[in-house]
Amino acid sequence: LSVGSSGSEDNGDRTAVKTIYMISDGTGWTAEHTVNAALGQFEHCLVDRGCPVNTHLFSGIDDVERLMEIIKQAAKEGALLLYTLADPNMVESAEQACELWGVPSTDILRPVTEAITTHLGVSPSGVPRGAPSRKLPLTEEYFQRIEAVEFTIKQDDGALPQNLHKADIVLAGVSRTGKTPLSIYLAQKGYKVANVPIVLGVELPGTLFEVEPDKVFGLTINPAVLQMIRRARAKTLGFKSQARSNYSEMDHVREELEFANKIFAQNPLWPVIEVTGKAIEETAAVVLRLYHDRKQKCAMPRISRRY
Amino acid sequence: LSVGSSGSEDNGDRTAVKTIYMISDGTGWTAEHTVNAALGQFEHCLVDRGCPVNTHLFSGIDDVERLMEIIKQAAKEGALLLYTLADPNMVESAEQACELWGVPSTDILRPVTEAITTHLGVSPSGVPRGAPSRKLPLTEEYFQRIEAVEFTIKQDDGALPQNLHKADIVLAGVSRTGKTPLSIYLAQKGYKVANVPIVLGVELPGTLFEVEPDKVFGLTINPAVLQMIRRARAKTLGFKSQARSNYSEMDHVREELEFANKIFAQNPLWPVIEVTGKAIEETAAVVLRLYHDRKQKCAMPRISRRY
Ligand SMILES: Nc1ncnc2c1ncn2[C@@H]1O[C@H](COP(=O)(O)O)[C@@H](O)[C@H]1O
Ligand SMILES: Nc1ncnc2c1ncn2[C@@H]1O[C@H](COP(=O)(O)O)[C@@H](O)[C@H]1O
Ligand SMILES: [Mg+2]
Ligand SMILES: [Mg+2]
Repeated sequence: LSVGSSGSEDNGDRTAVKTIYMISDGTGWTAEHTVNAALGQFEHCLVDRGCPVNTHLFSGIDDVERLMEIIKQAAKEGALLLYTLADPNMVESAEQACELWGVPSTDILRPVTEAITTHLGVSPSGVPRGAPSRKLPLTEEYFQRIEAVEFTIKQDDGALPQNLHKADIVLAGVSRTGKTPLSIYLAQKGYKVANVPIVLGVELPGTLFEVEPDKVFGLTINPAVLQMIRRARAKTLGFKSQARSNYSEMDHVREELEFANKIFAQNPLWPVIEVTGKAIEETAAVVLRLYHDRKQKCAMPRISRRY
Repeated sequence: LSVGSSGSEDNGDRTAVKTIYMISDGTGWTAEHTVNAALGQFEHCLVDRGCPVNTHLFSGIDDVERLMEIIKQAAKEGALLLYTLADPNMVESAEQACELWGVPSTDILRPVTEAITTHLGVSPSGVPRGAPSRKLPLTEEYFQRIEAVEFTIKQDDGALPQNLHKADIVLAGVSRTGKTPLSIYLAQKGYKVANVPIVLGVELPGTLFEVEPDKVFGLTINPAVLQMIRRARAKTLGFKSQARSNYSEMDHVREELEFANKIFAQNPLWPVIEVTGKAIEETAAVVLRLYHDRKQKCAMPRISRRY
C-alpha cells in the first residue's frame, strides 16, 4: 500500500479501483485503524491481485457543509462511506445525504457505542473530541507516555546500559530484528524500553544480567529472512568497508544468531520471541501479553486498564 | 486511566466498576483503539465522576477452548464482551456461549467488514492475521516505516541540522511543545520527521530557512499551560542550576514564546499549530491534514492510500 496517492482515476471503470471514503469529526485514526484491520480480510484480492482499493481519509469534519460536500463527492466516485461522528445531528445529516445520493455507508463506532451505553446505563455525550467545550486535562498518563518515549529514544541501540534498571522492558537481539521500531511502538503505549544489540564476539553489558530477568525479552529470527533484511539495509547505508562486509553474509548471519541463541539459552528466564513474518505491532502484542502475564501471575493473561 | 491494574474487585457491586472484556485473535489493538474512542463519549461519567470502567484485553485468542474460558469469566464478572474474530466458526462459538451464559456482546468489525464485502463483491478470507498460512511479506511500506522511525530518532532535538532537507516534515517550537512525541507519532506512520528546538536568544540553524517552507510546521502553546508543563518537567529532571532556573518562570516562558512567534511571523509560509489542550495524536492529525493538503493542492484535503 502506498501513502499519498491522489485518487479518483477509477471513475466509471467497474473492474478497476474501488474507493472507500472515511470521515471523522476527530483525528480519523479510529477509522483508519479499523478499515486497515478489516481490509486485512481481503488481502487475497487487493492491489497485487487485481482488486485495488483506494481509501481517502477526511478528518476534523465538524460542520454539515463540509460533510455534505464530501458525501456528494463520494457519490460521484461511487465510494463506500465509513464514518465516526459523535454529534447525532451530524450522523442524521450523513444518513439522509447518503440515502438521497445513493452512497452506501456505515457508522464505524455505533455498535460499540450502543453496547457501552446499555452496559453503563449512561448516554454518550455526543460531543466530538475536538469540541471547544472539551478541555483536555494534562493527565498523569499524558506525561507518562511522553516520558516513556523520551527515555526510549535515549536508550536506543545499547546507549546508556547503566540505565537498564530504569526500563520497564529490555529487548535483546542481533541487528535488524526490529529492536528500535518495537521499542518505539511500546514506548508510545507508555512503557519505558531499552534495547541491547547482540553482536558476534562483543561482550554484553553486565547490567543486562543484573536487571530482573522477567523484564528482558530475546528476539530471534529466521536466518534467511534476516539475511534478506540485512541486504536491503546494507544497500541503503551503502556499506563498503571491510569491517561490515560480512554483515549480510549467510555464514556470519547464522553464527551471530547462534551466538544470540546461546546467550538466550544461558538465561532461561528470558522469553525468546520469534519475529519472523511478524509486523512490529504483532511482536509488540506478544511482548505485552507476556509482560502482563508475568506481572500479574494471573490464570488468564490480559492487559487491564482503568478509565 | 492506569495501565496494568489487576481487575475484578468489582464483583457483585452494581454501583461500582463496570467491566469490559475485549477479545481478539490478533494483536487486540483494533479493539483497544475502538473502545478507547468510544469511551471518549462517556468521559462525563468515567473514573473521576463515579462511574469507573475496567477494560481487559485478551489478544491472540485463536482457539475455542480459551475463548470459552474467557467468556465464562466474563459472565462471572458481569462484563460486556467486545471482540474481533476473523474465523466465522470462532464467531459462532462466541455468540452461542454469550447467549448461553448471558453475556452481552458485540462484534466490533462486523459492520465495516460487511460493508466492504458488499462494496468489493468479494468475501472476507476468515483467516486471522496470526494464522500460519498468512505469510507477512516484507513490503516496501514495512521498510519505509522502520527507516522513518530510525531517521526521526537520530534527528531528535535539533541533532544533525544538516539533514533537515532529508525530512518529510520539520517541526519547530520551544521546549515542551511536544516536538519529540509528535515526531515519533508521525514517524510510526511512515514520515521522516526532524524537529528543531527554539530557544530564547539562540540562533536557529540556517538549514531551517533553506528547506521547502511547506514542510515546516511551527508549534505554539498557551503560556500558562506551558509553564505548568515545564514545572512538571523541571521537577522530574531535578533542575537546580542557575542556568535553567528561569526555564519555567512566567516571564521567561512568555518571552520565549514571543521569540518563537516572531520567527513564525517572519516565515509566513509555515503553518503554526496551536497545541494547547491537544493530545499528540490530535496535533498529528492537524499536521498531516495540512501536509497532504499542500502536497495535493486538492479541493478537499484528504489523506489517501492504496491497498
Ligand atoms: N476523548 C474523546 N472524547 C470524545 N470523543 C472522542 C474521544 N476520542 C475519540 N472520540 C470520538 O470518537 C470518534 C473517533 O475519533 P478519532 O479516532 O479521533 O477519529 C470521533 O467521532 C471522535 O469525536
Ligand atoms: N493483515 C491482516 N490480515 C488478516 N486479518 C487481519 C489483518 N489485520 C487485522 N486482521 C484481523 O482484524 C482483527 C483485528 O486485528 P487486531 O487489531 O490485530 O486485533 C482480528 O480479527 C485480525 O485477525
Ligand atoms: Mg475515526
Ligand atoms: Mg482487536
